[in-house]
Amino acid sequence: MAKIAALSGFPEWLPAERLVEQHVIDVFREVAELHGFSGIETRAVEPLEQLLRKGEIDKEVYVLRRLHAEEEDGAEAGREDRSRTLGLHFDLTVPLARYVLEHQNDLVFPLRRFQIQKVWRGERPQDGRFREFYQADLDVIGQDTLPGHIEAEVATVMAEILDRLPLPAFTIHANTRRLSEGFFRSIGLEDQAAVLRSLDKLPKIGPDAVRELLLAEVGASVEQAQACLDFASIRTRDASFADRVRELGGSGEMVEQGIAELTSVLERVEAAVPGVIMADLSIARGLDYYTGTVFETFVTGHEALGSVCSGGRYDALASDNRHTYPGVGLSIGLSRLVSRLLSAGLATASRSVPTCVLVSVADEQHRHLSEAAARSLRSRGISCEVAPTAAKFGKQIRYADRRGIPFIWFPSADGGADQVKDIRSGHQVEADAAAWQPPAEDLTARILGAGEAQDAPPTR
Amino acid sequence: MAKIAALSGFPEWLPAERLVEQHVIDVFREVAELHGFSGIETRAVEPLEQLLRKGEIDKEVYVLRRLHAEEEDGAEAGREDRSRTLGLHFDLTVPLARYVLEHQNDLVFPLRRFQIQKVWRGERPQDGRFREFYQADLDVIGQDTLPGHIEAEVATVMAEILDRLPLPAFTIHANTRRLSEGFFRSIGLEDQAAVLRSLDKLPKIGPDAVRELLLAEVGASVEQAQACLDFASIRTRDASFADRVRELGGSGEMVEQGIAELTSVLERVEAAVPGVIMADLSIARGLDYYTGTVFETFVTGHEALGSVCSGGRYDALASDNRHTYPGVGLSIGLSRLVSRLLSAGLATASRSVPTCVLVSVADEQHRHLSEAAARSLRSRGISCEVAPTAAKFGKQIRYADRRGIPFIWFPSADGGADQVKDIRSGHQVEADAAAWQPPAEDLTARILGAGEAQDAPPTR
Repeated sequence: MAKIAALSGFPEWLPAERLVEQHVIDVFREVAELHGFSGIETRAVEPLEQLLRKGEIDKEVYVLRRLHAEEEDGAEAGREDRSRTLGLHFDLTVPLARYVLEHQNDLVFPLRRFQIQKVWRGERPQDGRFREFYQADLDVIGQDTLPGHIEAEVATVMAEILDRLPLPAFTIHANTRRLSEGFFRSIGLEDQAAVLRSLDKLPKIGPDAVRELLLAEVGASVEQAQACLDFASIRTRDASFADRVRELGGSGEMVEQGIAELTSVLERVEAAVPGVIMADLSIARGLDYYTGTVFETFVTGHEALGSVCSGGRYDALASDNRHTYPGVGLSIGLSRLVSRLLSAGLATASRSVPTCVLVSVADEQHRHLSEAAARSLRSRGISCEVAPTAAKFGKQIRYADRRGIPFIWFPSADGGADQVKDIRSGHQVEADAAAWQPPAEDLTARILGAGEAQDAPPTR
Repeated sequence: MAKIAALSGFPEWLPAERLVEQHVIDVFREVAELHGFSGIETRAVEPLEQLLRKGEIDKEVYVLRRLHAEEEDGAEAGREDRSRTLGLHFDLTVPLARYVLEHQNDLVFPLRRFQIQKVWRGERPQDGRFREFYQADLDVIGQDTLPGHIEAEVATVMAEILDRLPLPAFTIHANTRRLSEGFFRSIGLEDQAAVLRSLDKLPKIGPDAVRELLLAEVGASVEQAQACLDFASIRTRDASFADRVRELGGSGEMVEQGIAELTSVLERVEAAVPGVIMADLSIARGLDYYTGTVFETFVTGHEALGSVCSGGRYDALASDNRHTYPGVGLSIGLSRLVSRLLSAGLATASRSVPTCVLVSVADEQHRHLSEAAARSLRSRGISCEVAPTAAKFGKQIRYADRRGIPFIWFPSADGGADQVKDIRSGHQVEADAAAWQPPAEDLTARILGAGEAQDAPPTR
């Protein structure tokens, strides 16, 4: 017998935990579809050359080899043949770029797509990093052009998704490349990318060490370095960030453009989901990849988890001889978020199974009566199981109780009325399988937030 | 630029096609949950020794290697270390067996679980075989014992799932091991496994060649061979198969047990989903693996596709020193089924996007009015997009039309009433975004069967 063991980095949920993950996936899909986003899936594999083409050599790609591979197989013929060797995708952006180019003649643009799939990274499974995990992406891709207001729109949809999840308060931190670059330029710093790289280290090494970097590596003066640190400390819920940027010496067309862009994003997201968006001029990560607004999202009290939803505007997701495809995209690290929801007790399922009613069986000769009652209940959308054995009723009730099934049904064998018992209260009444309705909150397993969970029955 | 090309054997759907796949997945989940089955997912990888432990050497497993793998990695240290080398799962049964053993202390039995995930097989992508495809499994797993009526129950749930899909007529063919083995024994054939292997070739080589096999390899007499062929030709919708088995010489306790089992399965499935179950005593495949009832499912007019849903009873999915886990399971080759639904025009989406209403934009200064109207519609569950640009209305209407979006909304900029136009009929009326409701059939993209599809708008 082969040894059975968990694999570090490959999370797996028990049924009650999977209900929480499924709920997060369902909310994502429902909100995305409400905003007219189409769901797609891409194959799990891409040619290695595609996976590495953005210079993503730091990503630990899983390369595939067929166990009985023939000579012609890319992986066998030598690792150099990266066009034939296949690897598992490590995100959903590289596959989207390939999908858009491959199917461009069959797609309509702007393409509004969401995609929820597992991705794989062979990284060391430490620091809560998984080797297999769900990502949930939302992108709008234009053909050659894409209006600026899409940046606020994608952030709005993500804000609505996060707002409907059983999360504590969260904040979407927004910045825009034009504002940062324009500011650094207007105070006389020419190597804006180097400034961004230094400021990116703020959360890890703190302002004093960043100041040293700015002085030593970027060649900033003491005043310039201070202005950069002051700039990066600006966080406002409204458009007042603009005056503070100007007070620090920010000026010129690029700065004003950046201010207008970021103000528009704040206003539009605030109008849709009040109280979640914030201008945060310290956000630097990805500004050398993204070309417009950039977003990171933090959960209050769980800041150490890092950003749970990040992304922004990029001017070229993909391009070929005919077209360039600019896009705006945001991505949730769904498994990491679900893992935290579970481990911190932020979300639990009200029961471990979908079943609302266990239909009891008095004896095997009358099982067909129980099956008929279950069929009648199911025809009205009530999830039922029929007891697997005609055990003593006490044992059948324990069967339901262990799973958190709220009701047990007793079919009548003598033509009298059926009865139904609420296992939690012990209350038992006569009922007709063709008409009885459980309370709405008991119909399906619900996902309870941290406050509600204490009253929940056992979730296994 | 890396070359962009489709990968043979790795199917990918366009948005409108994905809607059909998603519909099939949704129906499977909804019916499974109605019957109290819990959804689980297992990691995509298993140790190679697990994947190969049932002697599945004919399965072409994809083995993983990390691109920058260290020395200690199993795949690098030599292919012999199958406990550390990981492969992609090729079905959902091997992972279920491992999951049950690994989590047995945290699960309640009988475990009712469904699982819809992609699996990978490195086979030659010919004959409609995919290298990456969805399987959708339904199993009930007992701890040490599992009642016989579960066999009919799992088949019933699958029948309900298939019945709700946009399929032509389908038939679930059932046989049971005891009946076949008991019959072969009662006519004097001792090597029942060899008879099953011969009969298994019926669809491929026909009765005359099978007769030769029975004579030459099993050592049957002419009369015994004929009785086997006659037995395998029995197909009845009701319990009348029993008399025909007895007429052919079937007798004894085992035969009568098999008759009782199969009759019970027919009656129970017929009671739940009339007209889909059939006793078919030619079903031999898997009878040497399965230990009770076995099922195969064929779609009328698409028999060449092979069985779209197969499975049965097995007495030991898994076992350890303490427990044995018997189960009943059925599995749909979901991607292959969806591929046929699409290629044969059996199912199409009524539109390519979830969007019900495109909210037009008169000019960028009034975009906020369009966004407010969209928010109001969405708050009542109506999927909306706001037009990406303030193009001429004719162009905005074409944007909607190309996607099959049925309605376009015109917000009023002067305080008057908004208007909504049905793009298909051209009918335009005044409407209030806080109250207007589209016809129920236009609310979401629907999946149309072969008969309905002709009236559908373009699906791309």
